[in-house]
Amino acid sequence: MYKIVLLRHGESVWNKENRFTGWTDVDLTAQGLAEAQAAGQLLKQEGYAFDVAYTSVLKRAIKTLWTVLEEMDRMWIPIHHSWRLNERHYGALQGLNKSETAAKYGDEQVLVWRRAYDTPPPALEEGDERLEIGNPRYGDLAPAQFPRTECLKDTVDRFLPYWHETIAPMVKSGRQVVIAAHGNSLRALIKYLDNVSDADIVGLNIPTAQPLVYELDANLKPIKSYYLGDQEAIKAAMAAVAAQGKAK
Amino acid sequence: MYKIVLLRHGESVWNKENRFTGWTDVDLTAQGLAEAQAAGQLLKQEGYAFDVAYTSVLKRAIKTLWTVLEEMDRMWIPIHHSWRLNERHYGALQGLNKSETAAKYGDEQVLVWRRAYDTPPPALEEGDERLEIGNPRYGDLAPAQFPRTECLKDTVDRFLPYWHETIAPMVKSGRQVVIAAHGNSLRALIKYLDNVSDADIVGLNIPTAQPLVYELDANLKPIKSYYLGDQEAIKAAMAAVAAQGKAK
Repeated sequence: MYKIVLLRHGESVWNKENRFTGWTDVDLTAQGLAEAQAAGQLLKQEGYAFDVAYTSVLKRAIKTLWTVLEEMDRMWIPIHHSWRLNERHYGALQGLNKSETAAKYGDEQVLVWRRAYDTPPPALEEGDERLEIGNPRYGDLAPAQFPRTECLKDTVDRFLPYWHETIAPMVKSGRQVVIAAHGNSLRALIKYLDNVSDADIVGLNIPTAQPLVYELDANLKPIKSYYLGDQEAIKAAMAAVAAQGKAK
Repeated sequence: MYKIVLLRHGESVWNKENRFTGWTDVDLTAQGLAEAQAAGQLLKQEGYAFDVAYTSVLKRAIKTLWTVLEEMDRMWIPIHHSWRLNERHYGALQGLNKSETAAKYGDEQVLVWRRAYDTPPPALEEGDERLEIGNPRYGDLAPAQFPRTECLKDTVDRFLPYWHETIAPMVKSGRQVVIAAHGNSLRALIKYLDNVSDADIVGLNIPTAQPLVYELDANLKPIKSYYLGDQEAIKAAMAAVAAQGKAK
């Protein structure tokens, strides 16, 4: 039996400002940092001791991971970065305030863009400064491969090869793996592991910086999964995520 | 022509308390953290953009590196950890206050232990809790290979294979490399690069968190080397390092 831990980054500046973030490289808030510290303490208390970590190329996930590893006294383990673990690309919505967008397009359209499985928001156009082609952190991404927008299905399609080719073999080697990532890249993995339908995955809300444990069998099929820590606090955090994007 | 940057960690808790540290995993002080932030800002201003980083398995070096990379907005680059970049192992002196040790043994003996090229301090004995055999961060070190004490020559002997086999090929591949390490592991590299004599290397003082640039030719022989930043401040920092270990 194997055990992996999934961890969404702590609260970011744009979570707090209720903006569509996507691949925009925003930092954690002070609360986000505190959430990451608490997650590290909890993991340490519960006896977790990671051997290897996977994360995105975005600082809110990296800083969450670093903070957790510092609390656990595991700063020395290998950390692998990939754009395939990035948040879903939010196209032309990146940077917009979710409430403003909701007021303009209506709650329903925003909910479709946020949560429909295969409907991407409007794409970034060539020349848009938010299109980070040429940013060296994406050096392994050809310009044609670079996403201009993504629906959740696109995120699943670019995340899963990394799971199959890179993370899954490491889990099977017996190493304790943590994946520090984003709401939608983690949703992509959960959809695959738990075989969640396209319709149901959009309603799954992952709270920030709450360690989510998956116990897996020899074929990496889930035996059970659970959040560590105070279950009431986790329910409240999931409800808060669900409420984002509604017009205020 | 290639360029590499060597960086000693910022001030640690035991630098401040004037204790022999070696492989003891002490944290940075608030000043050490501020030094690392300043180093990152300086490197950014000077146009450095690292592609890959090498560091030890000790948190004072790792945290210095993380802080520098955060300031430079390069948190996403690969970081490779090795015990071969660790500080020189200080044997039975680890944890002792340098001034107390100097008062007990005399300035001269302490200077020999600190700076003689091939005279190690007394070794840790089996069963000493400071001997961290079994600590997972040293999982690739067989118990017989685990140092009980080191002279600088020993540090050179275990550092250089990592330089030749791992770091040098990366430099030659054209990637911009930073090495965030410790006073004596960096001294080991400088001894090799500049062909410094056994007698002279012990007098070389490396200030904390001051980026030291080496420009290297096609065979990785130094063309020139220099510290970035305020040259008067660097001289003062080097003098402060030299004054450590004298009886107070």
